[in-house]
Amino acid sequence: MEPLRILTGIPLASAGPTAGVLLALFAVLLAAKIGAELFKRIGQPTLIGEILAGVVIGPSVLGLVHPGETLQVFADLGVVFLLFWVGLETRLSDIREVGGIATRVGVLGMILPLVAGFGAAKAFGDSTETSLFVGASLVATSVGITSAVLIGLGVLKTRAARTILGAAVIDDILAMVLLAVATGIATEGNVDVASIAIVLAIAVAFVVFVGLGGTRIVARWPDVFHAPRFSESPLLPAVILCLGLAAVSAQIGLAAIIGAFLAGMIVAETRDRHDFEAEIQPLYAFFPPFFFVFIGLSVDIAAFADLEVLAALAGITLLAIVTKFAGAWIAARPLGRRDAAIVGVGMVPRGEVGIIVAGIGATSGVISQNLFTVIVGMSILTTLVVPPLLRRVLKT
Amino acid sequence: MEPLRILTGIPLASAGPTAGVLLALFAVLLAAKIGAELFKRIGQPTLIGEILAGVVIGPSVLGLVHPGETLQVFADLGVVFLLFWVGLETRLSDIREVGGIATRVGVLGMILPLVAGFGAAKAFGDSTETSLFVGASLVATSVGITSAVLIGLGVLKTRAARTILGAAVIDDILAMVLLAVATGIATEGNVDVASIAIVLAIAVAFVVFVGLGGTRIVARWPDVFHAPRFSESPLLPAVILCLGLAAVSAQIGLAAIIGAFLAGMIVAETRDRHDFEAEIQPLYAFFPPFFFVFIGLSVDIAAFADLEVLAALAGITLLAIVTKFAGAWIAARPLGRRDAAIVGVGMVPRGEVGIIVAGIGATSGVISQNLFTVIVGMSILTTLVVPPLLRRVLKT
Repeated sequence: MEPLRILTGIPLASAGPTAGVLLALFAVLLAAKIGAELFKRIGQPTLIGEILAGVVIGPSVLGLVHPGETLQVFADLGVVFLLFWVGLETRLSDIREVGGIATRVGVLGMILPLVAGFGAAKAFGDSTETSLFVGASLVATSVGITSAVLIGLGVLKTRAARTILGAAVIDDILAMVLLAVATGIATEGNVDVASIAIVLAIAVAFVVFVGLGGTRIVARWPDVFHAPRFSESPLLPAVILCLGLAAVSAQIGLAAIIGAFLAGMIVAETRDRHDFEAEIQPLYAFFPPFFFVFIGLSVDIAAFADLEVLAALAGITLLAIVTKFAGAWIAARPLGRRDAAIVGVGMVPRGEVGIIVAGIGATSGVISQNLFTVIVGMSILTTLVVPPLLRRVLKT
Repeated sequence: MEPLRILTGIPLASAGPTAGVLLALFAVLLAAKIGAELFKRIGQPTLIGEILAGVVIGPSVLGLVHPGETLQVFADLGVVFLLFWVGLETRLSDIREVGGIATRVGVLGMILPLVAGFGAAKAFGDSTETSLFVGASLVATSVGITSAVLIGLGVLKTRAARTILGAAVIDDILAMVLLAVATGIATEGNVDVASIAIVLAIAVAFVVFVGLGGTRIVARWPDVFHAPRFSESPLLPAVILCLGLAAVSAQIGLAAIIGAFLAGMIVAETRDRHDFEAEIQPLYAFFPPFFFVFIGLSVDIAAFADLEVLAALAGITLLAIVTKFAGAWIAARPLGRRDAAIVGVGMVPRGEVGIIVAGIGATSGVISQNLFTVIVGMSILTTLVVPPLLRRVLKT
């Protein structure tokens, strides 16, 4: 580090990028561990401790670690392995059972935020184009945080949890279409319906073929991952499948975690599921803390020093929470009051898709810099608010 | 990917860096697995299969994957976890027992390549400065590959293996001093003895304090990593220690793997060593393939199309192999003929330190572009030649 370099007076050529990256990875894991332990002791969700640890070591407070590309990759792998783990705990039949309700949750949970966001922006005098982008950026749920809370409380196999997972797949497909529409408007000025239909068809085909086909193949040949002649350990083939489906999923415009979730469901059909869980556990312990800490690193408290920005953030966050909750709650009502509330809260966290939509709007001038900052802040706040809320609802 | 983008006509904004990185990680792991399985079937070392898989998917043949910064980080973590694993299997007392011979192996294994490289370059009419850089770039052993072969053949606990590990630590300290000297000559035109003495003192103090102190502390409090009130799983504290010591090691100018090795030795002193090995095994399965494939990705066959470059490569590689083998062999002779041969071969692989030395020479104009290419090629060739040789010697 700089002090040492000054001390010795020698430019340490061998202390290249590796040394810096190792130090960042070390700092992130250590901070995550300390944050998680502190929050465990005060009876709060450990992942909030990890996110706050990110805020503390990040640009907002100490400035020790900055959210660079390498940490982003580790964070992405964190949420990929998180959803892979969730998939491992999920059977296709579990999702099918709640398919109808999950679809309605996905659809209604998209329409309400879209319409409300559009209407609110219009009411504040924004142009139709800007309002469309605001609406679109409020849509997409990201289930990483919700999944972690559900795992932590051991309720991943309940009907409400399965409804959330099914709805997340539907939600992501719809968000992808909206993203394509927004991109078309921003870059071409119009919407190419035919090519969006192709994108949609590819995404649906991917989910259906991989989800149904993959699980069936493995159910028929349950030894496919650990036939001794293929591999001593089933870990690498399973991880390769996870990364491959996550990559394809991202390539066709879906979230990488959808592919990882499907990969987990496929692997779950093998005979010795418990072997997998033991083998994948360490990867699940290693990577996800990067995801949580990265959320904290991405927070830039200074950006909200402006009162007007702060007011806009409060308003848009409230809108995002209420409309998503209401849409999901209404659609999940047949599951009963308590489960509908769980589904409603579980769908609230927004992920990077909203930020990407806003980012496209910002680069094409439709979204102002302040509005972009607000949308990023909304995405992080909806993530922060869910763990305590979800725990409270689950304990009723 | 591009074909899909052309097909749909929509710029997929969400297929950002993540999608590309996931695809690269997927391709590397899949290629590694295929290469390893093929080589296992023909009775050859799997890691050579993984390196060749890297050559095939890399710029030299198919050009599917390029060695970028993110893959470099995964490769670095691969060799870090490899040496952490080796440290877990090593007791401090094992190293102490062979300390004297290991030190002589390190010193003699440095002097011979340095002198021979300097002399050969001088004989071919190079300047004193250039010759010094050539000699210095032939010095540093990198034990990653050797360790992997020793693990694969189950001989990590033999006296020869322990001598190699001890010598690697000495070798790395000496190489660091040489690197500081070379950097001083290239950037300042002279050698600042006082500051190099400080660098050396810091490195020695780090190895001694961490190695002796750390293992003693853990030997006295063997529960330090998994006292239930501290953590349910001992994995994260151990990994944090590994990354932390690797980072410090790299920061003070040593190789990161020295810190990882020391961390492994420290953790090995805890009571339930076997729990650790089971927990860390998946990280050890996941990361090291990136290290081996990355070696293959770094090969640029086209650079050796020139006959003169090829001849220089052959000459310098032969010199690197013979001098390192001879130096280590002579020093290890008291261990007996067979063990001396194992130590000699085991010390042959050169790592990135030689490339860094040559790189400093290249940026300051002392080393020509062709000579730099030759040194990079030498570093890779010495790595490739060792696994089959070492297996042969070990089977005598």
